[in-house]
Amino acid sequence: MSDINIGKAKSARRGFAFDDIAVVPTRRTRDPEDVSTSWSIDAYRFDLPIVAAPMDSAMSPATAIALGKMGGLGVLDLEGLWTRYEDPTQQLAEIANAKDEDATAVLQRVYAKPIQPELITARLKEIRDAGVTVAGSLSPQRTAEFSDIVLKAGVDMFVIRGTTVSAEHVSKNVEPLNLKDFIYQLDVPVIVGGAATYSAALHLMRTGAAGVLVGFGGGAASATRNVLGIHAPMATAVADVAAARRDYLDESGGRYVHVIADGGLGTSGDIVKAIACGADAVMLGTILARAGEAPGQGWHWGPEAVNASLPRGSRVWVGSHAPLENILLGPADSADGTANIMGALKRSMATTGYLELKEFQRVDVVVNEY
Amino acid sequence: MSDINIGKAKSARRGFAFDDIAVVPTRRTRDPEDVSTSWSIDAYRFDLPIVAAPMDSAMSPATAIALGKMGGLGVLDLEGLWTRYEDPTQQLAEIANAKDEDATAVLQRVYAKPIQPELITARLKEIRDAGVTVAGSLSPQRTAEFSDIVLKAGVDMFVIRGTTVSAEHVSKNVEPLNLKDFIYQLDVPVIVGGAATYSAALHLMRTGAAGVLVGFGGGAASATRNVLGIHAPMATAVADVAAARRDYLDESGGRYVHVIADGGLGTSGDIVKAIACGADAVMLGTILARAGEAPGQGWHWGPEAVNASLPRGSRVWVGSHAPLENILLGPADSADGTANIMGALKRSMATTGYLELKEFQRVDVVVNEY
Amino acid sequence: MSDINIGKAKSARRGFAFDDIAVVPTRRTRDPEDVSTSWSIDAYRFDLPIVAAPMDSAMSPATAIALGKMGGLGVLDLEGLWTRYEDPTQQLAEIANAKDEDATAVLQRVYAKPIQPELITARLKEIRDAGVTVAGSLSPQRTAEFSDIVLKAGVDMFVIRGTTVSAEHVSKNVEPLNLKDFIYQLDVPVIVGGAATYSAALHLMRTGAAGVLVGFGGGAASATRNVLGIHAPMATAVADVAAARRDYLDESGGRYVHVIADGGLGTSGDIVKAIACGADAVMLGTILARAGEAPGQGWHWGPEAVNASLPRGSRVWVGSHAPLENILLGPADSADGTANIMGALKRSMATTGYLELKEFQRVDVVVNEY
Amino acid sequence: MSDINIGKAKSARRGFAFDDIAVVPTRRTRDPEDVSTSWSIDAYRFDLPIVAAPMDSAMSPATAIALGKMGGLGVLDLEGLWTRYEDPTQQLAEIANAKDEDATAVLQRVYAKPIQPELITARLKEIRDAGVTVAGSLSPQRTAEFSDIVLKAGVDMFVIRGTTVSAEHVSKNVEPLNLKDFIYQLDVPVIVGGAATYSAALHLMRTGAAGVLVGFGGGAASATRNVLGIHAPMATAVADVAAARRDYLDESGGRYVHVIADGGLGTSGDIVKAIACGADAVMLGTILARAGEAPGQGWHWGPEAVNASLPRGSRVWVGSHAPLENILLGPADSADGTANIMGALKRSMATTGYLELKEFQRVDVVVNEY
Repeated sequence: MSDINIGKAKSARRGFAFDDIAVVPTRRTRDPEDVSTSWSIDAYRFDLPIVAAPMDSAMSPATAIALGKMGGLGVLDLEGLWTRYEDPTQQLAEIANAKDEDATAVLQRVYAKPIQPELITARLKEIRDAGVTVAGSLSPQRTAEFSDIVLKAGVDMFVIRGTTVSAEHVSKNVEPLNLKDFIYQLDVPVIVGGAATYSAALHLMRTGAAGVLVGFGGGAASATRNVLGIHAPMATAVADVAAARRDYLDESGGRYVHVIADGGLGTSGDIVKAIACGADAVMLGTILARAGEAPGQGWHWGPEAVNASLPRGSRVWVGSHAPLENILLGPADSADGTANIMGALKRSMATTGYLELKEFQRVDVVVNEY
Repeated sequence: MSDINIGKAKSARRGFAFDDIAVVPTRRTRDPEDVSTSWSIDAYRFDLPIVAAPMDSAMSPATAIALGKMGGLGVLDLEGLWTRYEDPTQQLAEIANAKDEDATAVLQRVYAKPIQPELITARLKEIRDAGVTVAGSLSPQRTAEFSDIVLKAGVDMFVIRGTTVSAEHVSKNVEPLNLKDFIYQLDVPVIVGGAATYSAALHLMRTGAAGVLVGFGGGAASATRNVLGIHAPMATAVADVAAARRDYLDESGGRYVHVIADGGLGTSGDIVKAIACGADAVMLGTILARAGEAPGQGWHWGPEAVNASLPRGSRVWVGSHAPLENILLGPADSADGTANIMGALKRSMATTGYLELKEFQRVDVVVNEY
Repeated sequence: MSDINIGKAKSARRGFAFDDIAVVPTRRTRDPEDVSTSWSIDAYRFDLPIVAAPMDSAMSPATAIALGKMGGLGVLDLEGLWTRYEDPTQQLAEIANAKDEDATAVLQRVYAKPIQPELITARLKEIRDAGVTVAGSLSPQRTAEFSDIVLKAGVDMFVIRGTTVSAEHVSKNVEPLNLKDFIYQLDVPVIVGGAATYSAALHLMRTGAAGVLVGFGGGAASATRNVLGIHAPMATAVADVAAARRDYLDESGGRYVHVIADGGLGTSGDIVKAIACGADAVMLGTILARAGEAPGQGWHWGPEAVNASLPRGSRVWVGSHAPLENILLGPADSADGTANIMGALKRSMATTGYLELKEFQRVDVVVNEY
Repeated sequence: MSDINIGKAKSARRGFAFDDIAVVPTRRTRDPEDVSTSWSIDAYRFDLPIVAAPMDSAMSPATAIALGKMGGLGVLDLEGLWTRYEDPTQQLAEIANAKDEDATAVLQRVYAKPIQPELITARLKEIRDAGVTVAGSLSPQRTAEFSDIVLKAGVDMFVIRGTTVSAEHVSKNVEPLNLKDFIYQLDVPVIVGGAATYSAALHLMRTGAAGVLVGFGGGAASATRNVLGIHAPMATAVADVAAARRDYLDESGGRYVHVIADGGLGTSGDIVKAIACGADAVMLGTILARAGEAPGQGWHWGPEAVNASLPRGSRVWVGSHAPLENILLGPADSADGTANIMGALKRSMATTGYLELKEFQRVDVVVNEY
């Protein structure tokens, strides 16, 4: 790792974003028909390496089910509108209809209503009854409070997602979640993050997590960089965490922890690059929020945007581009990388000569601008 | 080749675009009148190092003939409108008149009509009768199907052009074209590509190709980068493939395979830089589509834009700048690098002290931004 | 320090701006409630590492007092409107109401009125009576002339601030201020700058200064770069001066001179990065000028803008965003890094695992673009 | 000089523009009043290191005289309107009033009128009679034809200026100017260029030139980069040619050839950086064309813009900012670096601790973005 001197008393590493890189074909090409995009985590196999970001703008019970039926993994935010309101239709409309200058205030008000545990149970049952893999997410702050209800309701996969989740959270005021103990006692596989460095990810892997989210869930709906000065160029973050996966595989004598890129994924080209850097799958927010079925109705926001004292994101317009199926599987009627994203992934793998996602992690990469 | 660490588990090479570089004069200057821009491929000699991109927006039989008479090489797309319609005038008008939001759909519909083999024969005859070098192109997918008809119709040069063409295409469903066998059995020289790396180009050279297209036919009409995440900064791609030419020259005991830059060439300055990086000639789409005679009537689109499930380009407005002759040979009435492109090339060579294209490949180059 | 060749006869160092870098979390996270942002300089302790830039657009006696009560350090420009006019209300209105093309002329006229020493005394008394730490600033040119009055009026802290202040100012016309003698004779701690290099800062530290301002007070209100060609990328400047602090600590046998970043600080993220590069505190102009209470009424200008022959800044619109308290301590109603800046700093420190500002100077940093 | 691999068959050097760098203060500051900006070339001493670019938009006999009286060196283009027309007032009005789309054609028509040798004599006499240093310029193509007339008319300094001028111009059609013989036989000092590399400049120095112009006269009025692909990042070009000056000084046993930056100089900050990179003086076009007295009346164009077959520039709007005196010596009423450029240079030198231009060539430089 070459070091850069910021000044005489500070050095830094270089980081690369997906925009800074591209994949490069080599001497062999393949038929896109022969390409597989399937992956497995724990006992669950998926045709598509797509995990939904648990965000109310993209995931309702209905869209989680639809995504599951198409081959991905839907994840419902168990601290979102669907567990606060019996029927959040009116609240979603309020958010969609708010003026720009009022949007943050509307979000803060709508999300102030307490979570109703019985709704957690009901929502998860609805997804389970549809016959797809059931996954819900909690923030690390709420995991201790609601995890029993979640487990009793029954999930196949549990997601703990925050801006930054560490294996070692220290607080003088609140007894923090002991991730290692928590995961050890659970019956279900846990996906946890975000983490953006080798060291943070390695420690999360040692807690027993089945998957690690890489990034800060950033992208269009986040302002982590302006407000907190925190940023992780995603290509570098994914490649670093992939190294942690490799080293932990050795250290653990064979536990393969899945690396799921979470942030900065606006186009199919970005998904291609995430896997090229070592991701096993991608967690998508913006791209899914653009589906015609998305509850956000063309608007997109993250859990950081509803914070009462320090919002770190806002409601942003992403548009309603196409039905979910076209976004995932095509056909596309535009060439901007927001539709037929799995067709694009297959064609990119075929063009560069790869048949499987795991092999494609080795594809050659070029830095465009330096 | 210095390596860049993207992250702990991934390294990459640096790539440079034409915009990143410029040529630099040295101590001697020449008279532009003394400069020659001629080049030869196989038995054919051309005054201008210009090969037309086989795109319906730029090339009709008439413009292919006109280009040939001015000293370049016209190439007709044998899977385009001219071999699907007896008279594509109406279809070209439909494309030109379509609203932006309908353009992709119009392209998809118009190109859905099957190719008529007898039109291939007729179009090539029309070009041959005009007394210029005859060249037509097919995609690798269609080469096996139509090559017999093409050869029977008679061509001087055969172009196989796709986004990425490899010497080793593997498919479980379709028997792929064996390029080496195919070229071996042909009587005519074959130009094939795109390829963007040393290795891919070297393998194409070993198939017996007379010329290799460098790049993905990119530029204004392509969205390969956003959709597929694939990109080849052109200055680097050309310089890499030029190295393959040099090494193959040694390996083959003297076969000189021509390197033809194909993509990213929007101005005469870009053409200058392509040759400075080692290209023997350039394949032009956008620049020729700007001619008053161009069938696109100011619009430009590539074969990727008509794909039914995953369009990777769209119809773009490039304008009608000047008659073809002014674009190629001047006089220019603007200073934006889109007219008198051969006058510009001659002056650039003269200013930096070179008389021949082959020598100009050694001109000094500077990286503007790093 | 790696050197860059500009050309054969000139080499340079690389410099980084705050925008070029970001901080990166590691394996531990903290509770923002546990984080302290306090710092001390000489005998004075502050809850917030915020020193106001002595600019009339941001600091009146009233806002200096308000800032002090909230935990920061207000600094009044003792050569500004408040010491030229008994009541500058009308002058502030003239500046705020001037058309863009007249603004520089209005500033030049309004600031042409002589400084009235008795107003220096009165303003400082007003601040002292409010019970907060009293600090006023003079330019190096005026320090000799007015410092006696200032000291007699009584200040807790004295600021000498110019575009560039050196320990060794040489002039044939005017007897320059001997900083070392001056500071030695003073009873109060002195903060002096701007300086932007290791060497310049080290010499300032040797004069006995308690704090050094890093930068040229740049940012929105300055045109030092276009006009003078002088620029100091702030991340590098802060890291260099932090090294001077460390080396001077050793050289002096234990004098810790505080490093205060002054310029380029437009968002809470920038403040985070300044401290990450080694700053002990930040001097803020633009951010405070955005307060509803700010005398500039949404306009911002610096002392360079009023220069009669060579203005190096102009009146710029920064807007009135929120009450000062919200800007400093929240709650924020937007996510652009201009409000709840201390909440953001605490959260950033917590997210990256730090409890104290001094420790946070060691946080990992990444270079985004290279 | 570190090399960059463009690709396997091509390497390049890095180049830096003025925008990429800035000067940095060190530990000492000076009083601007003590700074001298004078320089001498041959027997001529100037208070200001400013040579006018011989362009009709900036230089008339009247403005050449005015510049001379203020301490710079005016240079009249002896192939421009003033030697083609007895009174070019009407032609200048036609150019100023032309619509954008007609401007190139108007330039081509107006400049088609032949040069009248007697006007060369008359214009130079007019300048001489005013008592300032007399300088006129010819292109290398016309130097042989008109130099006798120029010398007979009497000049103090002779400028040979083209896009690229080499010591060794080779032509099969025209007997090229033998610069070395020509300069040897002349009585007056010659300034010649543009050159942009160490080698090209060293050879020009060996012809006996008194000064070398660095750059291609680029800037706002030129399109050399788009059209020809030729570009020389100016900071690097100046630093390279300064090295040639140093080496030639040794080689020649003491001949100091002056380095004059010519191009890319839009603000006083750029002038500062040119000298910081090693220039002895600067040749200004755009900045002088902005004077109220400039014949271009707010428009600016170069000799490349009138080329009949390959224009490499166009008429551009630069505006009428201020009287020439304010532009050179102030006072300035804006902070964009276009007025009081000598005041800015003096202040920049003072701020960084330098009294003389020659010393200021050693000032520290930082690369802002890398």
